[in-house]
Formats: sequence, structure tokens, C-alpha cells
Amino acid sequence: MKICRVRYGTVERFGELKDGSVALLPGDWRIGDPIDPINMTEEVPSEDLEFLVPVQPTKIVCVGRNYSRHAEELNNPLPEEPLLFLKAPSALITEGEAILLPNQSSRVEHEGELAFVIGRRCAGLDDDEDPISYIFGFLPANDVTARDLQKNDVQFTRAKSFDTFCPVGRTIETEAAVTDVRVATLVNGELRQEGRTSEMIFDIPYLIRYISRQMSLSVGDLVLTGTPAGVSSLQEGDLCEVSVEGVGTLANPVRKI
Amino acid sequence: MKICRVRYGTVERFGELKDGSVALLPGDWRIGDPIDPINMTEEVPSEDLEFLVPVQPTKIVCVGRNYSRHAEELNNPLPEEPLLFLKAPSALITEGEAILLPNQSSRVEHEGELAFVIGRRCAGLDDDEDPISYIFGFLPANDVTARDLQKNDVQFTRAKSFDTFCPVGRTIETEAAVTDVRVATLVNGELRQEGRTSEMIFDIPYLIRYISRQMSLSVGDLVLTGTPAGVSSLQEGDLCEVSVEGVGTLANPVRKI
Repeated sequence: MKICRVRYGTVERFGELKDGSVALLPGDWRIGDPIDPINMTEEVPSEDLEFLVPVQPTKIVCVGRNYSRHAEELNNPLPEEPLLFLKAPSALITEGEAILLPNQSSRVEHEGELAFVIGRRCAGLDDDEDPISYIFGFLPANDVTARDLQKNDVQFTRAKSFDTFCPVGRTIETEAAVTDVRVATLVNGELRQEGRTSEMIFDIPYLIRYISRQMSLSVGDLVLTGTPAGVSSLQEGDLCEVSVEGVGTLANPVRKI
Repeated sequence: MKICRVRYGTVERFGELKDGSVALLPGDWRIGDPIDPINMTEEVPSEDLEFLVPVQPTKIVCVGRNYSRHAEELNNPLPEEPLLFLKAPSALITEGEAILLPNQSSRVEHEGELAFVIGRRCAGLDDDEDPISYIFGFLPANDVTARDLQKNDVQFTRAKSFDTFCPVGRTIETEAAVTDVRVATLVNGELRQEGRTSEMIFDIPYLIRYISRQMSLSVGDLVLTGTPAGVSSLQEGDLCEVSVEGVGTLANPVRKI
């Protein structure tokens, strides 16, 4: 099932994306609530809707250096535990919106990733709890990074939190199997990044358990799972596409501010 | 005016804290909305209310090393521009709630600070705009930090984002003058940290303008302005108090998880 969030007239609603239309969920439905087709009688043609960022997380947790060849390409050692950082939710955009190159940076790079959305509050998971049951769904994401600022600043925060630096797909796929799928990033149709989720140093169950022990994850929170090798810079006029097999695609033009 | 957020029966409401009572704001009132005493006819004794964390930010932006003697005590160079990092909103607690020492750390330290809340969306401020007009109000905060993890990890994220690691006062003071006020932190009544906001390397107008150019600030976002010298460790059973002159006080017991 592909869940989206749309503007329909003046109202914002979640819904299920079908072929050319959206079946609207009830007005008070939120991520994590049960989905009952009986309450989804209102179907609207997609062309009458504006698609919004489908997530409204209280935080975006990202994992750095989670694919060994990416750590190597930036001359970083392999992490012994997940390297966590936060990205500001104000950076979120969705399909078709422009990634804006800020004046402060002369090298902005794409990082195509698989992301997931938390469906149930998740804190201090025990070893015998199933981390996967806390996931609501998956979507493609781009952890856009001002590489020069990332290297200069002590913290990643500024380099990764400019407005528009967190494009995500317009739908959340609730039924994907993602243990071994292809994650690819293309710029102007040319393949730049490629990897398989099976190459992650810390897999998704490990990440959920680990993060839940450092900070509680709230319903709707977004986790970006790290990027494969092949990062490269973005220029004004480029089109940057991220695709995650079985999950979805994401395309964003690149513009100067 | 001191704005608080309270639970009254099953309902959560903002209100103005008066002497021994709270004048409730309308149910749909949010931070940044105008405050009209005409709509505040309902007054409830404080003892009938549970005081909640008064802020619900989309992000918490913190400034590192903004008092020179604190940078020196940790052997850090003085920053040439503000050092920004994010703290997870899941770390928020308020007056009286316990700071929980996580098993992962053997050295958790207090960092008493002046914080402010954004009252109007704020992005890319021009030099001639007044940054102060974007502030809704001020409150005392404690940027609790697992110092050992902060030193070990590349990023500050984990060390500063454990649940309970962001205590804030129970009221937001909307009318304080904070350019030169005392910021002090006491542990078990003993003075540990002391400084004046006039000693900040980057003052509040500078910080707002700077942050707004890196990432847009949303209504309700929280900014912590940095800590004076004197950080020290917290032990189980301690009481940690932060006071900001003219703004308010904050006291939290310390417990093991």
C-alpha cells in the first residue's frame, strides 16, 4: 500500500495512492493508525491534488558510513557502532521540488538512501523484541550534504540541514521487503551511486534497536539508513533521481537559491 | 507574562501563570498567536493542574562554545562562527522531572543555558531586519551532555539526545530583557556554573540571523544559546538547578535509569 499526504482544496489529508487516484483516509487519520478500507470511500483523481511531504517527523535520525565502500571513498574508518546524526525537519521536500544550492557551499552532493518511518513509539528495545514491527513503511530519500561545510565544521548539522536538503518520495510503501534491494542515484540519467541494502554494515533491525537505546523514537519519526558509494556533486540545472527497488523513486531538480 | 502548558483533566491547554493560578488560553491557541485577555476568563488553581513541557519544537538548535571560558575549560578553540548542533525533541522534560543517567555513559554533565522560543517563522534574515522580533519568549534550559560519549563519537548527537537530556523551565517568559543577565547552575545548592549573557561570543541577534541563514526556524522552535564555564558531572541523587536572572529557574533531580 502506498500512503501519501495531499492537499485537497484547503484541506490536508492522508490517503492511499492508487492508479491515477487517491483514496482519502479519514481526516483525523495519522501515521501509525489502523487503515480500514471501509472508511475510504472518497476517491479523488490525482491531478486534482497537490502531493505534500508524506512525513511530519519530530526528528530525522540519519546513519553515517553504513556502506563500507562509501566510508572508504571519503577516507573514513568503518564505524564500530552506528554513527548517528540529526537532520532538521525544515529540510524536508518531496518529489519534484527543487534542491536549492546555498551560497555558503561550493560543493553540494547527493546521498541516495532507503528511509523508513516509525509506526509505534519505540524506546529501549529488548533483544527479544522484533524491531521490524515498529516500522510503518519505507520511502526513498536523499541526504543532501554540503561536503565542504561538513569537512570544515566539527558537526554535520549545518552541512546537512539547509532547507530542501532532505528530499523524500511522495509515498510511503507499507509492504516492501527491503533486506536485499538495489539503491541507486542518477544525475541527469547517469548512474552515480549504486548499492544493495544487504551491504549495510548495520542492518535495519540492528539500527532500530540501537537508536531506540539512545533516544526514543516517536510515531512518524524518519530514519535514513546510510548511502552507498558513488557520491558526486550537484550543479544548477541537474536532475537528481533516487530509486529504491520495490519502494519507490524520487526526482528533484537542482537550482541555485 | 509567563506562558505555560498544562494538563487540566484530560485536556492540554496553554495558559498564563499567575500567583497560584493559571488563566487558560483558548483551546486552539498556539505559540506565536496573539494573547487577548478577553478570551482568558477561565482561571484554575495551579494545584489542580499538571505542568507540561511548555514547548513542542520541530527542532532544538543548540550553540556550542558560545562563552569563551567554557570553550577554554574543555580545551576547545574559540569558534569563528557559531557551532550549531541539534538535540532530539524527545529529550525534553520540565521542572521537577528526573534527568536519567544512561548506562552507556560514565560521565554526564550539566550545561545551564538561556533558551528562547521562536514566535514567527524565520528564514534567511536580512541585515536590516530585527531578529529580536522573531522571539516569542525565554526560558532556562539544561543542555545535559554525556561528556565521555561526546568526546568519543564524531558527532554530538548521541551524547546530547538521550531522553531527559533537555530539561526546560515550566514557563516561557515573554517580557524579559536578557542582554546582560546572570546564568547560574547549582548542584545540591552549590554554585558550579556562572556567567552573564553579555559574555556570549555571538549574541542573540547574531545567532538568530545566523541560524536563519542555515535553516529556517519554525514557530515554536527552541534555541539554546550556549553554556558558561563550570560544567561538572551529575551523580544519582543530585539536584541540578539552573537559574536565568529575570527569566526563571529550573530544578531537576538526577536518577539512574
